[in-house]
Amino acid sequence: MRGFVAGALGLALLGGCVSGDGGSGFGDRASALPPSLAYRLTQSLTTEVGPRLAGTPREAAARDWAVRTLKDLKFGRVAVEPFTIKGWAREREEAFIVSHGDQALAVTALGGSISTPKAGITAPIAFVASYDDLLLAPPDAYAGKIVFINDRMKAARDGSGYGVAVRKRSRGAIEAAKRGALAVAIRSVGTDNTRFPHTGNMNYDAAVKRIPAAAVSNADADQLERLHAMGVPMRLKLVLKTRAIADAPSGNVVADIVGVEKPDEIVLLAAHLDSWDLGTGAVDDATGVAIVVAAALKAAGPEMKPKRTIRVVLYGAEEVGVHGGDAYAKAHAGEIANHVLATEADFGTGRVWRFASKALEADLPFFDSVAAGLRDLGVERGDNKSGGGADIAALAKKGVPIVGLSQDGTTYFDYHHTANDTLDKVDAAALEQNVEVYARVARAFANR
Amino acid sequence: MRGFVAGALGLALLGGCVSGDGGSGFGDRASALPPSLAYRLTQSLTTEVGPRLAGTPREAAARDWAVRTLKDLKFGRVAVEPFTIKGWAREREEAFIVSHGDQALAVTALGGSISTPKAGITAPIAFVASYDDLLLAPPDAYAGKIVFINDRMKAARDGSGYGVAVRKRSRGAIEAAKRGALAVAIRSVGTDNTRFPHTGNMNYDAAVKRIPAAAVSNADADQLERLHAMGVPMRLKLVLKTRAIADAPSGNVVADIVGVEKPDEIVLLAAHLDSWDLGTGAVDDATGVAIVVAAALKAAGPEMKPKRTIRVVLYGAEEVGVHGGDAYAKAHAGEIANHVLATEADFGTGRVWRFASKALEADLPFFDSVAAGLRDLGVERGDNKSGGGADIAALAKKGVPIVGLSQDGTTYFDYHHTANDTLDKVDAAALEQNVEVYARVARAFANR
Repeated sequence: MRGFVAGALGLALLGGCVSGDGGSGFGDRASALPPSLAYRLTQSLTTEVGPRLAGTPREAAARDWAVRTLKDLKFGRVAVEPFTIKGWAREREEAFIVSHGDQALAVTALGGSISTPKAGITAPIAFVASYDDLLLAPPDAYAGKIVFINDRMKAARDGSGYGVAVRKRSRGAIEAAKRGALAVAIRSVGTDNTRFPHTGNMNYDAAVKRIPAAAVSNADADQLERLHAMGVPMRLKLVLKTRAIADAPSGNVVADIVGVEKPDEIVLLAAHLDSWDLGTGAVDDATGVAIVVAAALKAAGPEMKPKRTIRVVLYGAEEVGVHGGDAYAKAHAGEIANHVLATEADFGTGRVWRFASKALEADLPFFDSVAAGLRDLGVERGDNKSGGGADIAALAKKGVPIVGLSQDGTTYFDYHHTANDTLDKVDAAALEQNVEVYARVARAFANR
Repeated sequence: MRGFVAGALGLALLGGCVSGDGGSGFGDRASALPPSLAYRLTQSLTTEVGPRLAGTPREAAARDWAVRTLKDLKFGRVAVEPFTIKGWAREREEAFIVSHGDQALAVTALGGSISTPKAGITAPIAFVASYDDLLLAPPDAYAGKIVFINDRMKAARDGSGYGVAVRKRSRGAIEAAKRGALAVAIRSVGTDNTRFPHTGNMNYDAAVKRIPAAAVSNADADQLERLHAMGVPMRLKLVLKTRAIADAPSGNVVADIVGVEKPDEIVLLAAHLDSWDLGTGAVDDATGVAIVVAAALKAAGPEMKPKRTIRVVLYGAEEVGVHGGDAYAKAHAGEIANHVLATEADFGTGRVWRFASKALEADLPFFDSVAAGLRDLGVERGDNKSGGGADIAALAKKGVPIVGLSQDGTTYFDYHHTANDTLDKVDAAALEQNVEVYARVARAFANR
């Protein structure tokens, strides 16, 4: 693998467009221009590594890819900071409406779900209109049943529908099990109308029986909704086979463009290297990786001599519990006060439209001036309550100043955590706007 | 099943919208209006029967559905005309790029394909840019390899990209096997950029070794194209398990609104009842079924007394070889001369934009006048060379006058033969335009 990745990178990063005529989506979007560095990075990671589930050999391949790429790009210090997680993998997933001609449902196990028995679980469906309705149900309301939760996520530029909709994914198994359910299935947390189910992490509670948890696609959820409305009781057969992996290796890749005046002060640009296993993780989060790498280089300038250190951290194991974010905060506990900024790119490929922050009152004028410098790119000033993002949340909690750059997420949840998250979904022009925004922010803080 | 279907139909056909708040795609498109008969028929067939592969119990369920529906709708004569086919079913399908981190490809067996050995076929990929290139290759050019054919279908209103692109699906296995290939995989015959592979019928030649044949999604084909361009040889593992079914039952459902003046003269409206197994066959061809049924009733008028007989034929086993079309022509050989018109709806849900025909010279003025009567619906007059469509081709060959109504197929091949062909893809407003066009044509010929 080693030789291949090195050779491939040379081609992908240095050789321009590797796609043939009529090839990638990129060709369609900007056929006259050669692909940018950010686009080539996105293409390289999604094509040469592909899916890279946390704790698997493919995530390790992504770390190898990152180390070689960042060295090729002349980052001054490049290191893997390993840690270990409880891994998980899917092996089989299927579901059928056995009461209605054995219609197959497009279904996927939620991340962390246990298996069903080998023959599956066959039981009546308890159709629950929403997660809030589930919470209102009394104990044993769903004894012996498979609970189906039908919440529908709303698309929004700021992704605000996610927080509401994701509750059923995170806690549906717990709340359904409390009420006697044998398993839980949810309408996918996603805004598309396709038959791609959306996976994503789910949780168990040590005090509550663990039950299998799956997501069905929006189109299949519509089908269940219509059949339910007809009043004929439904029975579902759900088969999940998953596997827990003890002590699975993961790690963060940390790469510095070392500052020439204040090398110990750090401007941190964050994205995550792992992806879910179903797709190639293009908008989640290869584009984030590409944005922060390209922005760091752009901010450092051709001589690569920023005043302060510009650090790119490509986190591992974000999807399965933000383990990389925690590991970084722990490993770098001694230098957290040296971080003059942390910002993250993990919301796909839409244009940045808002600059929010979490800064000390005294520092707000400087943050405001940086935000003002983004107006020509269509970026408005947001509030000073930004959490920054999952991977830098641990730093934010410890007081590291944060810039939260909101990308347009209107279509992000059409692809998020699905098999359909592939390179062709990347908007190459918007990607460049992102690089420019992140670069200006990084430059402003590095050279302040 | 019987009781359920009857009850369900009552609800779906008579009870109005069965979808809850925020329910089906229909609600989004025309929320103020109650669903039309055509929409309700589409919904009923795709929801209550769902996938209905030819020769399976689900196709039989579709015939039951059709008989009950057409009787409920007061068609005067409703009959099943059974025939037998060689059936086929898929059981397992998967593929991995074993040379590149075992990346999984979204793959589906082509209809009629044999299985691979249980452990699959693992072999180098011979990347062939197009079907035409395949034809130019010498014998044994691909000995020991899995041929991948990369033709990309072009979207067009008239679906003209299909004829070119489908050659590799129909004959790819034959032409690859002639050149020594172990298996063939094709870029899906479809115009989407998703990870849904498109199935569809394929052929073998008795004189050529049979090899397994599969389609990969467009997004996966892009991935193969990019990896191929990087120059690192690829190896693919392909696993297909399929099953041949001897003497599988199929049948046409024939329903007449009997003419009051010339009952023996027939205006035939055609669609097909079977679908591929992956989706619920909404645009292929539940909408066609809905259009011709609703149009027949509209043409007959509230008193159901057309001069000539308006006959709806819902064909079986179209997808797997147009067996229903052949069976009808054979069973009705004695009355073919009585067919004053045949027309077919099997191109999804786009608006009709062209009226073509195949009429005797002397009859052209009447056809022209019918076409002229559609101008306000945006329908232009096409030529007099129409083949009519797959199911009525046998009638056309025997001289039955044909009207070919071209539906806008720009997006049809985004969903055609995929798991994603579901109710939410139906454009309810365009469906009504179709019903009106088909009704005017049927009325004109029935009451001529």
